[in-house]
Amino acid sequence: MVAPLKVGIAGLGTVGTEVVRLIEAQGRMLAMRCGRGIRVTAVTARSKARKRGVDLRGIAWAKSPLALATDPEIDCFVELMGGAGDPALAAIEAALRAGKSVVTANKALIARHGSRLAALAERHGGALNFEAAVGAAIPVVKTLREGLAGTTIQRVYGILNGTCNYILTRMEQEGLSFAECLKDAQRLGYAEANPAFDIDGHDTAQKLAILASLAFGTKVAEKAVYVEGISSIAPADLEAAEQLGYRVKLLGVAVRTAKGIEQRVHPTMVPKSSSIAQVMGVTNAVTIDGDGMPPITLVGPGAGGAATASAVVSDIADVARGTRSLPFGRPVDRLRLTTKAPMERHEGGYYIRLMARDLAGTAATIATRLAEQKISIESIVQRHPDAGREPAANRGKPLPVPVILITYATSEDAVHRALQAVQRDKVITGRPQVIRIEKN
Amino acid sequence: MVAPLKVGIAGLGTVGTEVVRLIEAQGRMLAMRCGRGIRVTAVTARSKARKRGVDLRGIAWAKSPLALATDPEIDCFVELMGGAGDPALAAIEAALRAGKSVVTANKALIARHGSRLAALAERHGGALNFEAAVGAAIPVVKTLREGLAGTTIQRVYGILNGTCNYILTRMEQEGLSFAECLKDAQRLGYAEANPAFDIDGHDTAQKLAILASLAFGTKVAEKAVYVEGISSIAPADLEAAEQLGYRVKLLGVAVRTAKGIEQRVHPTMVPKSSSIAQVMGVTNAVTIDGDGMPPITLVGPGAGGAATASAVVSDIADVARGTRSLPFGRPVDRLRLTTKAPMERHEGGYYIRLMARDLAGTAATIATRLAEQKISIESIVQRHPDAGREPAANRGKPLPVPVILITYATSEDAVHRALQAVQRDKVITGRPQVIRIEKN
Repeated sequence: MVAPLKVGIAGLGTVGTEVVRLIEAQGRMLAMRCGRGIRVTAVTARSKARKRGVDLRGIAWAKSPLALATDPEIDCFVELMGGAGDPALAAIEAALRAGKSVVTANKALIARHGSRLAALAERHGGALNFEAAVGAAIPVVKTLREGLAGTTIQRVYGILNGTCNYILTRMEQEGLSFAECLKDAQRLGYAEANPAFDIDGHDTAQKLAILASLAFGTKVAEKAVYVEGISSIAPADLEAAEQLGYRVKLLGVAVRTAKGIEQRVHPTMVPKSSSIAQVMGVTNAVTIDGDGMPPITLVGPGAGGAATASAVVSDIADVARGTRSLPFGRPVDRLRLTTKAPMERHEGGYYIRLMARDLAGTAATIATRLAEQKISIESIVQRHPDAGREPAANRGKPLPVPVILITYATSEDAVHRALQAVQRDKVITGRPQVIRIEKN
Repeated sequence: MVAPLKVGIAGLGTVGTEVVRLIEAQGRMLAMRCGRGIRVTAVTARSKARKRGVDLRGIAWAKSPLALATDPEIDCFVELMGGAGDPALAAIEAALRAGKSVVTANKALIARHGSRLAALAERHGGALNFEAAVGAAIPVVKTLREGLAGTTIQRVYGILNGTCNYILTRMEQEGLSFAECLKDAQRLGYAEANPAFDIDGHDTAQKLAILASLAFGTKVAEKAVYVEGISSIAPADLEAAEQLGYRVKLLGVAVRTAKGIEQRVHPTMVPKSSSIAQVMGVTNAVTIDGDGMPPITLVGPGAGGAATASAVVSDIADVARGTRSLPFGRPVDRLRLTTKAPMERHEGGYYIRLMARDLAGTAATIATRLAEQKISIESIVQRHPDAGREPAANRGKPLPVPVILITYATSEDAVHRALQAVQRDKVITGRPQVIRIEKN
């Protein structure tokens, strides 16, 4: 039997502690599965003194992540500290240079430095595994890297942030405002005190950049992702979506187009019948459209100690077993540079919600302006304001009336030009709400 | 660069032809991904003359599957002939004995001979990959074998037969009878002329036996699976399910219980909110419940040339890359024997539909009989027959009234005893309909 794989873990938060526990608890099963044992031989974390509820006796304490990464006594360096830069970055680089394999759950770091780290791994013969960086235990990295090796992928898209999906689900199901749901998410620990990274779409963008690289062979580049968050979504949009047969989800979408790979994160209308539309609460999901076959959708927990640790341990088991897949599925020198797709050239259907000043002529004006841009309308709904909600002071004065449009496929550019014209016509009040539609 | 992997393919039906095409079309991508080329060097099929729409020039034609399997010019034998016995079985055995790797999409063969073949693969150092045998391109074999290496699985269940799910979906959505939907499925090519293998649950049972082995380390054994098909399901059951917040699906369920691993295939009520309940038409899906984490659900096409070929090519790519996972995730001598779980000891909730002869005393009688068996009732619905549907001749005579019960968790035994008592009481007509409930 081969000698056990010696693992060093940097970072002993919820995930790191659970990885130590799991490797210990599942020792026999892992040895059976991998044909060799897996042993945590050294760890490091910010505080040695902190109580963690896991037995660290017999495990060496390294004086720093860098020292652990280059410790000749470990074969596999597991980075669970987080952060897109040092000390995580320097430690991973050092481990790879020393020919060790690296397992990490660090999406920010892979999104920013993934290609460079993959090149190091290739050069020195180590693995670089990061299943936990996207969708925790949902096996999406492995599926794109190994499972669809011979299939050309046309599109990969998903719900990659549990916080946003939790908020949108509550808004939809209870008719609450964005602000109320965000507050609840914070109270329940689903959203950070500073929620911008999640709700503005940046967390999703980092994960999408990783998926796009795996799916399309592009150099992972967070900067190539167009990003829009969910804070502008109003209960009125969710209500209209419901009536029109859609749901609103924050999607990360990477798609092959004639103009290159488009990577974008934005609130999206998805048909209620699609698998992705069924995904509620903090659950994540990824759909993969392969050439010539119906979509594959992977659904599961996108975060959480047990789910993340499960993915980390699977990655370690692959190292122990000797599996060496290229980090992004292809040699780094074959990964193509990708640039940010100009969204004004995006093509698709659109949901548009406008507040018409005066019902009589407005619909005609809007329809004309859209027609001038050659935009075809799939449906148009004008809703009379609920009389019960009308304040007494306003009686007699006409209130703005919501006009909701669904367009057939057109270009974003055309939509903007049409809406600018409508605004110049002064037939609407406030800013138009525009949400892109993604068909399944 | 390592020499190309030389592949021999036995069976050139839809899938085999598509595998040849895909390996040719994706040659460069596969070489990039695997670090070596993949080349189909020899094939065999029943008819050499048949037109297949794929270029076989430059590919040798072996005189039999067995000759191909032992051809020193191939490294990897791909079996796409089907059939649980020879010639597929003998050819696979010969290939493994010769130290070659084997890729197959043959669920019947793996369900029946999987453990023995895995032992051969282990002994001689070849891979035995069969992703396509369950859920086509849905990466469920890889996920159970490698992706959840450190996680104890409590339950795996799924919709594994597209024909049955198509029929149940049509019945539910259009209120049609089983017979009508079956006829349509046959017309559309979703069901065989002899549909028994699908609709009686045997196809699902074979796939479930494979999943159970991967999930729980049992010796794959189709005979250990309790099987019940969908032909007894009536539109009335689907209608009642809808009203009670459930859908009816033919599930394969393998679950760890205090009494061992229970493997069963039967029509099942699943909560409408579960991921599995959203799966419609010919689509397949598998849910995996891992220790301490929310479920993971994998959804996608369970059949079809492109999807099946995609899985076969991924398996071949793993062989090319040098990945060697144990066929069932553990050494064969560690796989445990499993016996058929006695269903009378199954515990869970039940849906029961009875036709009461006379409404007045019947509900009380039924409730009493259930109470005698310590069965608690979650809900009971008595529905008066639609007066509009009542034939004139019957006016005045009391018609049988459906009584629908949902029980809390109890044993199957208790349900049978209670229903036998109810039948002896002569308060119902016909046979009671009983459908097991699976909670998510």
